Amino acid sequence: MEKQTGLLLISNQKNEADIHYLCGVRPPEGAILLKTGLNRFLLVSTMEYNRLRRTVQQNVTVISPDQLGIKPGQKMAKWTHNLLKEKKVSSVEVPSDFPVGIADFLRRAEIKIKIMKKPPCPQRQTKTQAEIKAIRQSQRAAVAAMKAAIQQISTARISKDKKLYCEKTILTSEKVRATICHTLLNLDCIAEETIVSCGLHSADPHERGAGPLIAGQPIVIDIFPRAAWSELDRRGKTGYWGDITRTVCRGPASAALKKQYNAVKAAQAAQLKALKAGVCANKIHRIGLELMDARGFKTKTVDGVGQGFIHGTGHGVGLEIHEAPRVSPANKLPLRAGHIITIEPGLYYPELGGVRIEDTVVVTKDGYTMLAPCIKKLEI
Amino acid sequence: MEKQTGLLLISNQKNEADIHYLCGVRPPEGAILLKTGLNRFLLVSTMEYNRLRRTVQQNVTVISPDQLGIKPGQKMAKWTHNLLKEKKVSSVEVPSDFPVGIADFLRRAEIKIKIMKKPPCPQRQTKTQAEIKAIRQSQRAAVAAMKAAIQQISTARISKDKKLYCEKTILTSEKVRATICHTLLNLDCIAEETIVSCGLHSADPHERGAGPLIAGQPIVIDIFPRAAWSELDRRGKTGYWGDITRTVCRGPASAALKKQYNAVKAAQAAQLKALKAGVCANKIHRIGLELMDARGFKTKTVDGVGQGFIHGTGHGVGLEIHEAPRVSPANKLPLRAGHIITIEPGLYYPELGGVRIEDTVVVTKDGYTMLAPCIKKLEI
Repeated sequence: MEKQTGLLLISNQKNEADIHYLCGVRPPEGAILLKTGLNRFLLVSTMEYNRLRRTVQQNVTVISPDQLGIKPGQKMAKWTHNLLKEKKVSSVEVPSDFPVGIADFLRRAEIKIKIMKKPPCPQRQTKTQAEIKAIRQSQRAAVAAMKAAIQQISTARISKDKKLYCEKTILTSEKVRATICHTLLNLDCIAEETIVSCGLHSADPHERGAGPLIAGQPIVIDIFPRAAWSELDRRGKTGYWGDITRTVCRGPASAALKKQYNAVKAAQAAQLKALKAGVCANKIHRIGLELMDARGFKTKTVDGVGQGFIHGTGHGVGLEIHEAPRVSPANKLPLRAGHIITIEPGLYYPELGGVRIEDTVVVTKDGYTMLAPCIKKLEI
Repeated sequence: MEKQTGLLLISNQKNEADIHYLCGVRPPEGAILLKTGLNRFLLVSTMEYNRLRRTVQQNVTVISPDQLGIKPGQKMAKWTHNLLKEKKVSSVEVPSDFPVGIADFLRRAEIKIKIMKKPPCPQRQTKTQAEIKAIRQSQRAAVAAMKAAIQQISTARISKDKKLYCEKTILTSEKVRATICHTLLNLDCIAEETIVSCGLHSADPHERGAGPLIAGQPIVIDIFPRAAWSELDRRGKTGYWGDITRTVCRGPASAALKKQYNAVKAAQAAQLKALKAGVCANKIHRIGLELMDARGFKTKTVDGVGQGFIHGTGHGVGLEIHEAPRVSPANKLPLRAGHIITIEPGLYYPELGGVRIEDTVVVTKDGYTMLAPCIKKLEI
């Protein structure tokens, strides 16, 4: 047998999704995937072996350490080297976040390591019909949770001190987050970092929010659930994500907040209108940036703190919540039919708070398909 | 200023907890931590800068990319190099799972890279009183969820075909998992990979389970919640984990299952009895292995498939669900007072199913403290 080359992945948070995509199972921590041509070899601990070999895709061979003569206590680098020796692989491509300790070990063993410039599975960006269906299901769950959250806020009583009340208790970020999580659980989804941030908290896009909700202030609600995953029962258990954001205000909003909200809403509409296969990702971003800039909402950095439209327009959604393609100033590549991306312009000012509106859409030849519609309304 | 050396971490799933521990905030994806002596520098995107600089520990300086002259679109390797240049660091220690792409870039820039043999924060293993309190809180939530699950199973009706029913609907792994997740949410905890596996499914320790629960079969319930985390409101929002497993059987168990259960229970009792500061981790493992072996429950690998006691006895619990120290055959180091570990022997046979019993304890000078007690009873 001739010496071969292969793609090598060690499962961690980032490339867990790649191995899932290539093998049809969610890999345990420390799984080692070797792909040579059409062959895929998945080396996992003895404890995981039987479970995974029953459920992987047909073109995957699951391997147990004892089949490679690996002894208890031997390290991951040795596991990896034994696998490459067994399969006569002398040269591998690895992603740039591959563990340096293992890379250096393999180099010392005269394995050639080539660090990839592209993601390990670029084909993940273009979704199949089954993937679109899976992401739509998660997006519908996100919309259902958004409606439950908005319902809870819109029916809250406004006290004299502007705090919101549900019956006799103060309505907080935490309570609305609990409403969202329970709703998602009932739809077989899980969401860990849900954002319900009010007032100045919302000036930080990733602030999750805490404490009482206040009337007349922006409340940013960002829900990104992942469908449950099961190797045994795949019906609706897909492991795919959805992502939606709305900004609402209980009671009348100030003129300034309305203006900020309308700029973001108009930016999203303009970006969606321009969206279709062939348009470059950075052009979509620029359309939103320029529209908001023209309305007086400048983007700048003051003492290290960003103000204005301080993040990219969006990101791919699939087996990861943030995946390629990015809809950002740095991505000059054209979008393609079958890409599923978020379009989520936002404006953030430390003295005013934040507004963000986000939908997840499929790029098509002539435009886009909204995965799950949800009302956009500031004052509730 | 003289050339310095430092510890360098890039946040990913594994070392997110290290950065959290060193800085007092949960780092966003791609955060870069440089520690030189007592100084800690945390480089994050402009979008994250303001949120994190308000909430980090006193000895941490949060840095925004524009403060280092980093331009939009520049890569993480360049960010890292700019930070090292600014702080005059020419040599760094990195963990073995540090991204090879960044390591190679730094080497080309004549930064000396030393790959650590130890974990980046070995001090994380020994818990403070505040950490013990936090983990106990998560463990109590886990026990509450376990009680709710056992209550649901124990009150289920057994139909003629041995399936369990709650009123008129079949009780499934999924339904019990939902009960557990809702209970945990109400206690401000989240659990993603909860195991409720019945019958032969339980022969795979990490099989989450699916479908109807059956009377007379082992049901392994493994609950590992993480407390919510908030940068804004730290009261009870600690981000620490808990971990508990029970095995139950609705209705009478077979003689074989009882024997298997009693062996695991006796193994755990013997391991706990031997536990105290100074005892080596692998000795605790061996005590369980030998006791079960003497009762006829052999551990072996057949055609790559493990049978018997096929995993380590336990692991540390803290800001990660699985962290050092491991209580495994490979860990010959002594346990120390303040280590928080699980003791979770189990026996798994493809033709019989699995049994696992797990508690999380603090190692003390003379023994151990159970973090949260919970009944151990097979037949319910």
